[in-house]
Amino acid sequence: MRERNLVARGLAASPGAASGRLVFHSEDAEAFASQGSKVILARLETSPEDIHGMHAAQGIVTARGGMTSHAAVVARGMGMPCVSGAGKIRINYENETLSVGPVTLHKGDVITVDGSTGEVLLGDVPMQQPELTGEFSTLMDWVDKIRRLKVRCNAETPQDAKSARDFGAEGIGLCRTEHMFFEDGRIATMREMIIADNQEVRREALAKLLPMQRADFIELFEMMAGMPVTIRLLDPPLHEFLPHEPDDISHVAKSLGVPSKRLNNRVQALHEFNPMLGHRGCRLAITYPEIAEMQARAIFEAAIEAAVKTGKPVKPEIMVPLVGLKEELDFVKARIDAMAAGVMNETGRMVDYTVGTMIELPRAALQARKIAETAEFFSFGTNDLTQTAYGISRDDASRFLSDYLRTGVIEQDPFISLDVEGVGELVEIATERGRLTRPGIELGICGEHGGDPASIDFCEQVGLDYVSCSPYRVPIARLAAAQATLKRQAQ
Amino acid sequence: MRERNLVARGLAASPGAASGRLVFHSEDAEAFASQGSKVILARLETSPEDIHGMHAAQGIVTARGGMTSHAAVVARGMGMPCVSGAGKIRINYENETLSVGPVTLHKGDVITVDGSTGEVLLGDVPMQQPELTGEFSTLMDWVDKIRRLKVRCNAETPQDAKSARDFGAEGIGLCRTEHMFFEDGRIATMREMIIADNQEVRREALAKLLPMQRADFIELFEMMAGMPVTIRLLDPPLHEFLPHEPDDISHVAKSLGVPSKRLNNRVQALHEFNPMLGHRGCRLAITYPEIAEMQARAIFEAAIEAAVKTGKPVKPEIMVPLVGLKEELDFVKARIDAMAAGVMNETGRMVDYTVGTMIELPRAALQARKIAETAEFFSFGTNDLTQTAYGISRDDASRFLSDYLRTGVIEQDPFISLDVEGVGELVEIATERGRLTRPGIELGICGEHGGDPASIDFCEQVGLDYVSCSPYRVPIARLAAAQATLKRQAQ
Repeated sequence: MRERNLVARGLAASPGAASGRLVFHSEDAEAFASQGSKVILARLETSPEDIHGMHAAQGIVTARGGMTSHAAVVARGMGMPCVSGAGKIRINYENETLSVGPVTLHKGDVITVDGSTGEVLLGDVPMQQPELTGEFSTLMDWVDKIRRLKVRCNAETPQDAKSARDFGAEGIGLCRTEHMFFEDGRIATMREMIIADNQEVRREALAKLLPMQRADFIELFEMMAGMPVTIRLLDPPLHEFLPHEPDDISHVAKSLGVPSKRLNNRVQALHEFNPMLGHRGCRLAITYPEIAEMQARAIFEAAIEAAVKTGKPVKPEIMVPLVGLKEELDFVKARIDAMAAGVMNETGRMVDYTVGTMIELPRAALQARKIAETAEFFSFGTNDLTQTAYGISRDDASRFLSDYLRTGVIEQDPFISLDVEGVGELVEIATERGRLTRPGIELGICGEHGGDPASIDFCEQVGLDYVSCSPYRVPIARLAAAQATLKRQAQ
Repeated sequence: MRERNLVARGLAASPGAASGRLVFHSEDAEAFASQGSKVILARLETSPEDIHGMHAAQGIVTARGGMTSHAAVVARGMGMPCVSGAGKIRINYENETLSVGPVTLHKGDVITVDGSTGEVLLGDVPMQQPELTGEFSTLMDWVDKIRRLKVRCNAETPQDAKSARDFGAEGIGLCRTEHMFFEDGRIATMREMIIADNQEVRREALAKLLPMQRADFIELFEMMAGMPVTIRLLDPPLHEFLPHEPDDISHVAKSLGVPSKRLNNRVQALHEFNPMLGHRGCRLAITYPEIAEMQARAIFEAAIEAAVKTGKPVKPEIMVPLVGLKEELDFVKARIDAMAAGVMNETGRMVDYTVGTMIELPRAALQARKIAETAEFFSFGTNDLTQTAYGISRDDASRFLSDYLRTGVIEQDPFISLDVEGVGELVEIATERGRLTRPGIELGICGEHGGDPASIDFCEQVGLDYVSCSPYRVPIARLAAAQATLKRQAQ
């Protein structure tokens, strides 16, 4: 084995390894890739603007951000190696250099990222391809006979859904619809909607998004062929869809055909001190019900069309995010139900659907008894539940959690493995109270913990119905679910 | 009565009314005031840099920020009228104008702010001075005979402490030590500490802060003359002490004698996506134990000196903020106890003190049984507990809570009156579990709710020992406490 020449260490954010030429901008990633070069994209942090560069790259390294930063989540979804939050790295976009202490790397230098260990290495480190053998499928057959927990996947694209099915997923537990708006041709329309001055203009932009969103759902429903698909309504704050740097703002304003100043004003007006706790989730649907209505229409129309095409009935599960009060869910569900009635009336066809909610706020967990009067299912969003229960921002946590681990204050990053004692109690409370109101209520988990064996063991213990995780984690989740079942039987 | 010419409406952030000439910069506020003019300071939002301007002004109006924004909290502490979050206002710092729709006001125009109604009015609106009559003190005598709950105040300065005592406060329930670092001559040393490259340089800066902090505490302890004083260790993220605008950065760098670039790098490195959930509270003490040690030394040395001067023993209550895990409190308490032993050894005098924690995170409330093994008191920080339980940032809430109130999703802003059903359950859980471990544990509330009558009623119901509120709210808190006692007796 050759020497491993370690440059820096970060979080093992997405497993697997890759080598390539170092680039710092998405345009360079695409340019190099189009010439047949493999590239590793290095960024302080990634944003939706970098998605093309990420697609073009073999691997990602970021100086900032945690296990659930944009880079980490997107890379895991893509099955692409990623090291995030390598805090010692200094990236200079202007000079296109990456420095760690006295070592400085330049654009075009070859590096290797190992997303399973969190290492960034110099040069083209030799690696092994994993093999899926017959023994693997024998093991998985055994596993599936034993486990009680269902395993779904978090997926938005038909490709993801296909990977997940190939890996044995039994449905989609989390379709984050916002990912569908970041694509080319859509982000512009999304931005038109966001900068609209009034509801009428907003509805016009939404009318343009409707067919795209409907087409996405048709593809997903066809791919899943009757398996359950849980679709979460728009969740992130709207400013995530807008550019923030002055150059980007003037560029985007030009392409939208609006004055830079107007776009800039909207960006400023949407600025938030704590976006994680801001105007997002169901709060968007309460301010702009027309967004939720467009999404509901797209879901129902797609369900009808896909059912006709595949001959298998589609039963969408519509998930309202960031609910803290029963009244929020009531407000949004009323719009969804009205839209369902409208579409069924227009088409003369029935759609069987359910409306439920993420449990991702401590208040929601405590109020589960009331919320279950309206919610037909709960999906535990344990990423946000961990953030709020602990009062820790995932994206900012790396700078002090390392001190916590070093001093022994904590033994395990609560974003990697569920904090059973604290966050876990909220899950137990919500499970117990939800069932008091609605004994058969469907219960799942769709946070990153859904792919973590120790957390899956906890889900079995509490008696959830399913876990949902990234496509590439489905096999490990199936195995962990079986182990959890065996552990309970042995007790 | 003359016509009230309404310009804009915001939050009634700090009661009372004031008129004055409109200014947009702290320097102008000071310049006008030094020439005998009354001024109203208008800002998008205020920051610690504006403190001099706020002191010079008669009233404050901000376009952004909630009931617990910097402007609102500081104004209430000063007893100065403030309207915050007047979202329709457009402020142009360059042209020094304030516009609402077609109306544009210029620097020097006279306006009136009514912090009791949240109104901003044109011109010098006539007003009445409140009178404290003999009837007032008779009523307060009755009130004090009836109420069970003690009433403390949130105060940092001897002036605040004096006002609070004049209003009948029975101790300080929350001394936010960070306020002491924003003053002239200190902020510079604080910044030296923050930009220090290593612990040694940091300790040198802290050594300069020690005598200032000690002197503050001596004054406070003398003023309170043996009454309980709860001192909270440094809470906000360190970037709050640094400038953020390029001009301010180069100005401050110059005065610190460091290159702009170095200060700028530190500002960038400390940037957080969600500062409310960031590197703050006890997390600072775990990364930089030397800060907590300096503060503990200042407290113990001051307690000894004040006790000698007044002849009354001082029993400080040291409060560790933002605890979510017992292990965090253990870590910080060990440093405090070691410092106490050291100071007692050096001086040959004893100090009786307690160490406790804020309960301001859902996880802390749930883990109260374990945390009470270490904590000798709990103080409910219901501002942050509301933010985390609901997943709502106070500073960003105004843009959607108004939709919530309009649509009837909520009836009352949970930052104004405690959400009894959700946040209240966490208070009840922590109370019950804390008492299981430590039956006589001292329990208080120090969030903004401590001055709200409906919330005080809840505190009586749960059986807390005291409420703590802004000095100017102490009389209303005493009255509300008596009403709550009577209500329980009548049941």
